[in-house]
Amino acid sequence: MTTTDNSSQLEEIIKDITDRRSLMLASNRGPIQYFRDDDGEIKEKRGAGGLITALMSVLKATGTIWFAATLGNEDRIKAKNSPLIGIPEDEPEYYLRLIDLEEDTFNRYYNDISNSILWFLQHYLFDPIYTPVFDPSLSESWEKGYKFVNEQFSKAILDACIDESDPLILIQDYHLYLVAKNIRIKKPSALIFHFIHIPWCSPDYMRLLPDYMRSDILNSLMCCDIIGLHNSRYVKNILQCFDEFLDVKVDYDKDEVFDGNRVVKVGAYPISIDVDDLLDFSRSDIVKDAEKKFLNKKGDLSAIVRVDRAELSKNIVRGFEAYSLLLERYPEWLEKVKFFAYTYPSRTEIPAYEDYTDRIRKIVSDINQRFGTNSWQPIELEMTDDFPRSVASMKNFDVMLTNPIFDGMNLVAKEAAVLNKTNGIIILSENAGAIDELKKGVIPVNPFDIESTSTALHESLQMGANEREAMSKHLKHVVSENNISKWLLDQFSDIRDLL
Amino acid sequence: MTTTDNSSQLEEIIKDITDRRSLMLASNRGPIQYFRDDDGEIKEKRGAGGLITALMSVLKATGTIWFAATLGNEDRIKAKNSPLIGIPEDEPEYYLRLIDLEEDTFNRYYNDISNSILWFLQHYLFDPIYTPVFDPSLSESWEKGYKFVNEQFSKAILDACIDESDPLILIQDYHLYLVAKNIRIKKPSALIFHFIHIPWCSPDYMRLLPDYMRSDILNSLMCCDIIGLHNSRYVKNILQCFDEFLDVKVDYDKDEVFDGNRVVKVGAYPISIDVDDLLDFSRSDIVKDAEKKFLNKKGDLSAIVRVDRAELSKNIVRGFEAYSLLLERYPEWLEKVKFFAYTYPSRTEIPAYEDYTDRIRKIVSDINQRFGTNSWQPIELEMTDDFPRSVASMKNFDVMLTNPIFDGMNLVAKEAAVLNKTNGIIILSENAGAIDELKKGVIPVNPFDIESTSTALHESLQMGANEREAMSKHLKHVVSENNISKWLLDQFSDIRDLL
Repeated sequence: MTTTDNSSQLEEIIKDITDRRSLMLASNRGPIQYFRDDDGEIKEKRGAGGLITALMSVLKATGTIWFAATLGNEDRIKAKNSPLIGIPEDEPEYYLRLIDLEEDTFNRYYNDISNSILWFLQHYLFDPIYTPVFDPSLSESWEKGYKFVNEQFSKAILDACIDESDPLILIQDYHLYLVAKNIRIKKPSALIFHFIHIPWCSPDYMRLLPDYMRSDILNSLMCCDIIGLHNSRYVKNILQCFDEFLDVKVDYDKDEVFDGNRVVKVGAYPISIDVDDLLDFSRSDIVKDAEKKFLNKKGDLSAIVRVDRAELSKNIVRGFEAYSLLLERYPEWLEKVKFFAYTYPSRTEIPAYEDYTDRIRKIVSDINQRFGTNSWQPIELEMTDDFPRSVASMKNFDVMLTNPIFDGMNLVAKEAAVLNKTNGIIILSENAGAIDELKKGVIPVNPFDIESTSTALHESLQMGANEREAMSKHLKHVVSENNISKWLLDQFSDIRDLL
Repeated sequence: MTTTDNSSQLEEIIKDITDRRSLMLASNRGPIQYFRDDDGEIKEKRGAGGLITALMSVLKATGTIWFAATLGNEDRIKAKNSPLIGIPEDEPEYYLRLIDLEEDTFNRYYNDISNSILWFLQHYLFDPIYTPVFDPSLSESWEKGYKFVNEQFSKAILDACIDESDPLILIQDYHLYLVAKNIRIKKPSALIFHFIHIPWCSPDYMRLLPDYMRSDILNSLMCCDIIGLHNSRYVKNILQCFDEFLDVKVDYDKDEVFDGNRVVKVGAYPISIDVDDLLDFSRSDIVKDAEKKFLNKKGDLSAIVRVDRAELSKNIVRGFEAYSLLLERYPEWLEKVKFFAYTYPSRTEIPAYEDYTDRIRKIVSDINQRFGTNSWQPIELEMTDDFPRSVASMKNFDVMLTNPIFDGMNLVAKEAAVLNKTNGIIILSENAGAIDELKKGVIPVNPFDIESTSTALHESLQMGANEREAMSKHLKHVVSENNISKWLLDQFSDIRDLL
């Protein structure tokens, strides 16, 4: 597999941009977190995830400042000690500015609003008969949590570019919707790009928010120069929201919104993974060890694999319901297949996630009891975060099930496509952002339809070798062409066009 | 109050149309249901509701056939005895054709699909983390229930117009989405108007349906000449659904959809009430008796009133949460106000409705226990269907709370506007179809925001006499101008334009 290498072109564009503009980057989670080791000393660890890797690589020697929230006590101590932390500290290539937040403030901003309201809203996760309920406690979390934290970020950014009339500000995701407006007021010539990593919902669903939140969010986003999302459906939805709730003019052909003389461009930039990085890791000894264990457990069985956070939007329960239906409708698979489900706990502070984890354990136990035999357990569930084990399973699945209800992109599908060496079939939800790129190489399913999902499992398990090979080859090609560097290149090219 | 009388113009248009075309009308529930009286004899009773009254009035002496499902055993007996029932039987002005359906078939079509899937979908009532789940039993209900019943209706209609090349077919609501296509195939020149009485959802939310349902529904609706809905938001949503899921061309300026040479017009026709009929009834002795009882209970208290089916979309629980918050935040209302909630059980075959009824009883009991005193009960809940009592309360409220999550129109708000004689204030959800017409005369609220709803209750209760009078007057004017006859006139005018 050869990956398209845009990195030199990307470096060139970034150099051109940073020669002309100071670059500021803001996200909830920063590239480094601090923790205390066994000796009580504060140490740093690099944040996980392809996005951080990718951004770190482009920030090399740019002098950029990365603004991020303090996530724990050690971050807070670090923030109090040094307003600007060089990365690396001895010979800085760029700088980290931690926004020091009290625990209560952080909880209100992060758990109450960002993850319990905005995440739910944009993934259609509410049960509108009963949730959400906007009460005085939530409006307080909005004021003293979300708005306050967004102001702290904005102030820190404005402080840092006090001498610049036109900095370039890159804002990441749904935690920081209110930053753009604060910046725009003080820095009319700033170039502001806000990237949203989750879906955007339809105007009707935005009606679940009270006006005080909806207006603040949309009005602030209208202060950007570019808004980036993963998929053309999300672009259409956000344009329709501007159209319905604000007094602006929308050009649906050009994906532009006009507010008087200002124009906001909205674009789809599908994120990807760092293919080479992932493949390097997949050849490491730690993965090879995990692979031995996996293959040992698999034995002669066909392996269905899923790898997810135990996240409400990932549709893990219906995935098992579909598997149960497979065993019921196609008993020829009894004792011939095994479902390896690696799904690690997430956001356990939020009650709905705890309930969901219970539901997952319950259905797995039910299925194992109903169909299992002395020598065969239909499902192996591991609710721990073990990336080498997940990579090992992605290298060796027969069928990978990724059936999210709604999902901004679903990078697991792209990782699985690149990693798999057994011509395994990927079943992918038609509501995942990744479907646009991957549809010809996957079996698409409606995530709410467990009947057709069970059929998809059956058909994937018995698919002929030629077809499997063709689909697998196609997927590897597509993902390699659309490497993470392309995602960055497309954004920075559009930024340069506006300079 | 004078109502705009379009009836002579309407009669003229209908005469013109029925002179040129045979008129067929199809709806789930017909204008007459049959029941057995105490002597065991089958008797008829007129269906309730303004729609039936309105349609019956326009059908006078047209020879129209009205197709409706058999709802009970007596309907079934009647259907078997006489394929075409004259209404009235001795001197028919039009005819009733009952579609004879087995109980199991009816349940699949009505409870499983129409009310548990389509109603939930179009009102955003699902809890997508867990519902819907499309399993083999649901796909069977689709095939043997919904599709089968739609075919039965279609066959009966086609049989009835076997000698007509271009009948006019009026189809009502979400139970009969698949009729249009069956008709169009056999009668290419038929003029088909389908009116949908509930909201239409966004394309994203349509993704909760499996393709086999979504395609059948949208493809059939594309066989209409006109599709009518209550509100421009629903028009926009259905146009976007055609655009996203079918290979058709949509003109968003003209609200037209093109499929090759065929064009489908989509229009907003906001339904209304029969104002004169309602006012006549409100002056009847039975209402006057109910009024005495109501005023007796009210005494010197300010009266908050709600009148609804115990329907998931009506948002009754959050209404009480807002009231609880009113008593907590503004204790000056303790022992000064009473909430009269008339909300009668509905669709009790569906478990979610039973749960909802339990939740309503629970929160009412909690609030009465928490805030009640020996001499004052904060809420009076009556879960019985008693129209005279409801009319009596609508004549005399200080504040009317109608805060549905989403609602096709919300005729209760229009009834309350016309009936009220105490310059009462109506609090209306910004997600009710009626908001477009009524917004200047009501206090709009976000139904998910109990904090602002409690503020709205407080402000409405203490509003000055002049403002109350102005709003009340405005509402009466608006509703009288947009009487039910206008709703019919607009539709039949558009039909005539196509002849």
